[in-house]
Amino acid sequence: MAIAPPIADPSTTIELLGLAAQVEHTQFTRLAAYSRVAPGTAQRMALARCAVQRLDACERLLTRITELGGDADAAMAAFSHVLDGFDSRTASTSWAERLLVPYLGYGVADDFCRMAADGLDDESRALLQEVLTDPMPADLALAELDDVTAHDHVLGARLALWGRRLVGEALTVVQSVLESKPGMEHLLGVQRGALYGKLTAEHARRMGRLRLTA
Amino acid sequence: MAIAPPIADPSTTIELLGLAAQVEHTQFTRLAAYSRVAPGTAQRMALARCAVQRLDACERLLTRITELGGDADAAMAAFSHVLDGFDSRTASTSWAERLLVPYLGYGVADDFCRMAADGLDDESRALLQEVLTDPMPADLALAELDDVTAHDHVLGARLALWGRRLVGEALTVVQSVLESKPGMEHLLGVQRGALYGKLTAEHARRMGRLRLTA
Repeated sequence: MAIAPPIADPSTTIELLGLAAQVEHTQFTRLAAYSRVAPGTAQRMALARCAVQRLDACERLLTRITELGGDADAAMAAFSHVLDGFDSRTASTSWAERLLVPYLGYGVADDFCRMAADGLDDESRALLQEVLTDPMPADLALAELDDVTAHDHVLGARLALWGRRLVGEALTVVQSVLESKPGMEHLLGVQRGALYGKLTAEHARRMGRLRLTA
Repeated sequence: MAIAPPIADPSTTIELLGLAAQVEHTQFTRLAAYSRVAPGTAQRMALARCAVQRLDACERLLTRITELGGDADAAMAAFSHVLDGFDSRTASTSWAERLLVPYLGYGVADDFCRMAADGLDDESRALLQEVLTDPMPADLALAELDDVTAHDHVLGARLALWGRRLVGEALTVVQSVLESKPGMEHLLGVQRGALYGKLTAEHARRMGRLRLTA
């Protein structure tokens, strides 16, 4: 049984909020880029709206850092390149593959931040749990995927592989964050193995919703 | 003296609204991309907010197309690649040069749409004039440029050249739109030479605000 972690000190709280703000900002920019290359206007606008929601989340997290007496700019800047490697290793020119990146890839980063939020003060925890919603609504991703896979039966298997690749790349990011910021690990109240297990289970749940084999 | 153009037929009105919506959407995606690579968090967030304003403008234009009985998706899709050439020819890795692209480059496209709006019904014209504001507020661009040029006196001359390049590329886009959509030219109520003159004068005014030599 996991033991409830103690309430984090302010500097670790600000560190987690800064990480989450950067993750949300990166999602904003990547969803906006996908919006540009979406196959039609409806998808273009849907992705753009998802992007704006991520920016709203980012701004609310920065506001919370300021409320806690932190330097919002510095807290976010500390993680400004945290997803650069993930993004460069998960670039894709296929619309179906792109659709999975926010929902499956960034979903892991959001889960991590939500889990670490268990160790924060009530208000910060509630904020993280509220704003770190799925970057792309499951029904949007699902409707698009159904449309794509209806015309290509081999695609389902290929996308399942891509989904596994995305979770692998995302877990690599989590590992590197934990190694560079040891304070974060204390927030989680679980050992690293248990953390990866929980993140993988959440990923499998999302794959299932998309009717892909995890 | 320019003669007031007649009120445009609905299909030309929808065409102009679709062009403007696409221009705004492209600005949204490019400002979001710049937000990702901005040198600090403050600039990152400022550019992100500018991006969202462009998306809001895009959405309001699409709503107007629907009100007029048009197909918003199709109207915007007709111009989905209108700025691809401009964007690829004005890619830059310098922060100072990037700052000028929205204000000076897209500013020309916005001016064109506002001028053509003279030929539309009152409500469509008022909407275009309201939402097509400067993509990046002049004071934001100016503050950043002052900061950059304070440390580099040769840069002012280089940026003046870049500004002239941007207006040239933007006028190329205007020319290609006029050639592919002859209905647009009728909206303007001026000859093409007069149009280019007006667009260039507006550009010079913006260059002046940035203290650059047009």
